[in-house]
Amino acid sequence: MLTFYWARNTCARATHIALEDAGAAYVSKRLDFAKAEQRTPEYLGVNPKGRVPALVTSQGVLTETPALLVYVAQIHPQAKLADLTDPFAFAQCQAFAAYLCSTVHVAHAHDPRGARWADEPASLADMKRKSHGNMRDCFRLIERDLFRGPWALGDAYSVIDPYLFTISSWLAGHGVDVAEFPGVAAHFMRMNERESVRRVLAVEAA
Amino acid sequence: MLTFYWARNTCARATHIALEDAGAAYVSKRLDFAKAEQRTPEYLGVNPKGRVPALVTSQGVLTETPALLVYVAQIHPQAKLADLTDPFAFAQCQAFAAYLCSTVHVAHAHDPRGARWADEPASLADMKRKSHGNMRDCFRLIERDLFRGPWALGDAYSVIDPYLFTISSWLAGHGVDVAEFPGVAAHFMRMNERESVRRVLAVEAA
Repeated sequence: MLTFYWARNTCARATHIALEDAGAAYVSKRLDFAKAEQRTPEYLGVNPKGRVPALVTSQGVLTETPALLVYVAQIHPQAKLADLTDPFAFAQCQAFAAYLCSTVHVAHAHDPRGARWADEPASLADMKRKSHGNMRDCFRLIERDLFRGPWALGDAYSVIDPYLFTISSWLAGHGVDVAEFPGVAAHFMRMNERESVRRVLAVEAA
Repeated sequence: MLTFYWARNTCARATHIALEDAGAAYVSKRLDFAKAEQRTPEYLGVNPKGRVPALVTSQGVLTETPALLVYVAQIHPQAKLADLTDPFAFAQCQAFAAYLCSTVHVAHAHDPRGARWADEPASLADMKRKSHGNMRDCFRLIERDLFRGPWALGDAYSVIDPYLFTISSWLAGHGVDVAEFPGVAAHFMRMNERESVRRVLAVEAA
């Protein structure tokens, strides 16, 4: 049995949806960031990074969204959530995840979490202003070069879909209309109709 | 035949070493960042992100270090550069790569490349100052929680080793002595003795 740690409105939503897509057996543990529950000694014992998501398995704890998504796909092969047999196709999946993780998520984080990288209020305001254009630039590249349609990687649904969906949902907070990116916008609507997504959004809202 | 695009003193060094470790057949193409060769129309046709590394395969172009490292391991199984069969072990490998890519590389980049995330000179100076402590914090976590020894993931050498080695080499530029982290420091020395590493460093210096 897996134990999944998550918090509302974070990138953990991607793995949460993938667990539902996979029909995984897991216990869900919500952390309240408003109460800094990710910084308690108990949780730092689970994940010393003090972040979500974290997945406790019978072999130990795993972290980092790109790792968790592929792990969920790999231990639930019947769900066909990633092409693990063709190295080129798998590398494209991995490259999409790495871009979302290291460039797009990071571009976003300079708005709410600039204090990770600078101290002065003026610097944080500067980062916040620039984050909006950076997010638009990232999604222009996704729309033009990475997104295949109807799903992120083409005809087959994969673990990249809940990841793209999760990060697409942050555009509105940057004042960027997802409709600027027709492929991504249609994908966002299509994801909203999935049962797995509806279940996770209901759990987050509860 | 693979074509590998790289530039001096960048994270492309990790994949470059992995290609040498694998005994891969590849053509090496160096870009000169001082001449902004990563921004030419020709190169943007290869990699629209305008970054390195990029690997041109017979099936298309691949980017993003975590994706390339696993791809190199996967197409050269005889080199045993990643445990691709055990999902938990593979997820640990992936989590280490994701941390290096999205947290440590990003912490570093706020020194030389702060202009990605802010515009004002005072903000860039603020980011630069804070980057040094962030790099120290990242390596404290690596030393305590991620690094196994003697290689990054334990007894077996893997593609995470050249990645950790590459990013460890950036500590000096932050005024952080790698000796603060005994496991990582011993790993850095051990890597410097490898033939694959010597070959790549010689090519970079040429």
